Amino acid sequence: MLIQDLMTPAAMLDRAIMQHNIDTMQGRMNQLGVKFRPHVKTSKCIEVVRAQVAAGAEGITVSTLKEAEEFFSAGFNDILYAVGMVPTKLKPALGLIRRGCDLKILTDSVASASAISDFGREHGVTFQVLIEIDTDDHRSGIKPESDQLLEVAHALKAPGAKLAGVMTHAGASYDLNESSALTAMAEQERSRCVAAADRLRQAGFPCQMVSVGSTPTGLSAASLEGVTEFRAGVYVFFDLVMHNIGVCRMDDIALSILTTVIGHQEEKGWAIVDAGWMATSRDRGTQRQKIDYGYGQVCDVHGKPLDAYRVTSANQEHGIISNVVEVDRDIAKTFPVGTMLRILPNHACATGAQFSSFHAISANGQTTEWPRFNGW
Amino acid sequence: MLIQDLMTPAAMLDRAIMQHNIDTMQGRMNQLGVKFRPHVKTSKCIEVVRAQVAAGAEGITVSTLKEAEEFFSAGFNDILYAVGMVPTKLKPALGLIRRGCDLKILTDSVASASAISDFGREHGVTFQVLIEIDTDDHRSGIKPESDQLLEVAHALKAPGAKLAGVMTHAGASYDLNESSALTAMAEQERSRCVAAADRLRQAGFPCQMVSVGSTPTGLSAASLEGVTEFRAGVYVFFDLVMHNIGVCRMDDIALSILTTVIGHQEEKGWAIVDAGWMATSRDRGTQRQKIDYGYGQVCDVHGKPLDAYRVTSANQEHGIISNVVEVDRDIAKTFPVGTMLRILPNHACATGAQFSSFHAISANGQTTEWPRFNGW
Repeated sequence: MLIQDLMTPAAMLDRAIMQHNIDTMQGRMNQLGVKFRPHVKTSKCIEVVRAQVAAGAEGITVSTLKEAEEFFSAGFNDILYAVGMVPTKLKPALGLIRRGCDLKILTDSVASASAISDFGREHGVTFQVLIEIDTDDHRSGIKPESDQLLEVAHALKAPGAKLAGVMTHAGASYDLNESSALTAMAEQERSRCVAAADRLRQAGFPCQMVSVGSTPTGLSAASLEGVTEFRAGVYVFFDLVMHNIGVCRMDDIALSILTTVIGHQEEKGWAIVDAGWMATSRDRGTQRQKIDYGYGQVCDVHGKPLDAYRVTSANQEHGIISNVVEVDRDIAKTFPVGTMLRILPNHACATGAQFSSFHAISANGQTTEWPRFNGW
Repeated sequence: MLIQDLMTPAAMLDRAIMQHNIDTMQGRMNQLGVKFRPHVKTSKCIEVVRAQVAAGAEGITVSTLKEAEEFFSAGFNDILYAVGMVPTKLKPALGLIRRGCDLKILTDSVASASAISDFGREHGVTFQVLIEIDTDDHRSGIKPESDQLLEVAHALKAPGAKLAGVMTHAGASYDLNESSALTAMAEQERSRCVAAADRLRQAGFPCQMVSVGSTPTGLSAASLEGVTEFRAGVYVFFDLVMHNIGVCRMDDIALSILTTVIGHQEEKGWAIVDAGWMATSRDRGTQRQKIDYGYGQVCDVHGKPLDAYRVTSANQEHGIISNVVEVDRDIAKTFPVGTMLRILPNHACATGAQFSSFHAISANGQTTEWPRFNGW
């Protein structure tokens, strides 16, 4: 199918841009000498992750056990579930392990570590468990210098559990937009996670894996000494949030929403399109960044940004496009009813999740539908 | 299944509360003497809409042609597609009509009206078309006094198209929070839509349907004289946005997200749960209202609100719960790892769309899974 034949709204994926993003990140990790484990929560799409693995990725990171199930069924074996484990999810995790999945799980508390050990012992399986380290104060994890670190390691007792390593994610890197600050954050993420691993080893615990990562720190790190693997997700598509952070150009954004103009309010300079927030998602991640793109940057049907036009407001199935520099009272002539446009997303993970498939565009303009999944 | 046996996150629907909401709105419309046509975009769930019809609703409103397809396949025949029609969607609309669907479509421009007429004539079908009226300056539609109103009516020529009536939606009612202002907005919605119908009739056009509505105006209207049918969607579940507007109590909210505590940051007073924005949606609709509920109001597992606890921040699969009145440094004791909680949503339409089913809870605590659909 050609783009012009698709029903709108639709999620478009530029294959050449995506491949460039994959190659750039994998090339950096090869240079820095670490294994790369992409986070599949961004795409939840087998075809996309196959392209990441083809470029050199080893293993995947998941944010839900459904992702683990889907990717394991598709032949991916080495899986890190990077959200803290709760007792109720041990049963499905056990099911995956029994079917042969090399699943690694996560904890940051004695309560959860003990529950994992007990459950593993009762069911005759040894869970491989990473301890989550808090290197930037933004979410979960244990501080490298905290007493809790050794307590949790102690709670991961054989035969039900085995300490596999440490893991961190510098989500605070999303709040930065200067190269030097990003490089410093990458170094903080690395050094504090390595410090946790060293402390565990000094206390006599094995700590094979030292897993760190986020897209901004991956593209900014000067050294990954002591790290065994790096994780990143959104780099594969990029988005306007990443553009504002300064780690991609606007034309590195591989994901866009195809939409059609359905009407106008000419005196207000509005074109109304059939991509509302159900298509763009409600993510307003650029709201507090240096450029607020509203609900997205408007492009022509070929994906070329139309500078001053943005999706300035959105209802469920209506988006409102306006020129943010000067009111375009000729907007019905600029974008007549039926005009197809494309919208670059604030946040690719959120926007992609509004769709059940991507339309991958090849260099010849042909599109192929790649299914993705959602839910838990 | 009992609630405690469900995997989290999950979307919970309290059947008794939902039924109360359905009965209240239907009762109002019966009293006001108009037909009620619920908007199914809120639930996209056959079971929910069957309950609305059982209470007296006649016909449905849809926001996508996929909703039209799904509900038509499930036996619903009288369908109003309440988003402006574009030429590319006429083919699937034609398919529905040929299969026997009593489909009504919408326009607010001569360009679109002419395209509809031409396509209908070429394909031997007469589209029933409503003209969208702008009664509150918030989105699409033609002003009742505009020259365009009669021009569009003229463009809807037989045999390809037939003017079926006028339609409006006072979305601006969402910006209000006082009973008198809401009643005035309901009257504005009614009187301006009726004025458009009168003007068309005076010019010799038939105008059978006068369709108005939104949840806030539906619950505030003093009279619906001249209106033939009312539409509303979110009233069936309600949410925190509607609570802030003042049209429901917190315990009228039928939809909630079941979640599990996965960890803590005690010194910050955070409990971390497995409902991130992928579960709650990114909707921050209460941000500019009188009470900002963050990403949702926290309740115990039975749905009882725990006043000061809200989801104050969210990542993709992590929600952060804190006490917004005073930091709860004992939060690991308040909500130990594994605790199940429920979260009331800002916006039921957005939150529901993050899930592929609802777990409907009966009075005996048993849950039944009701599928819903998403996408286009």
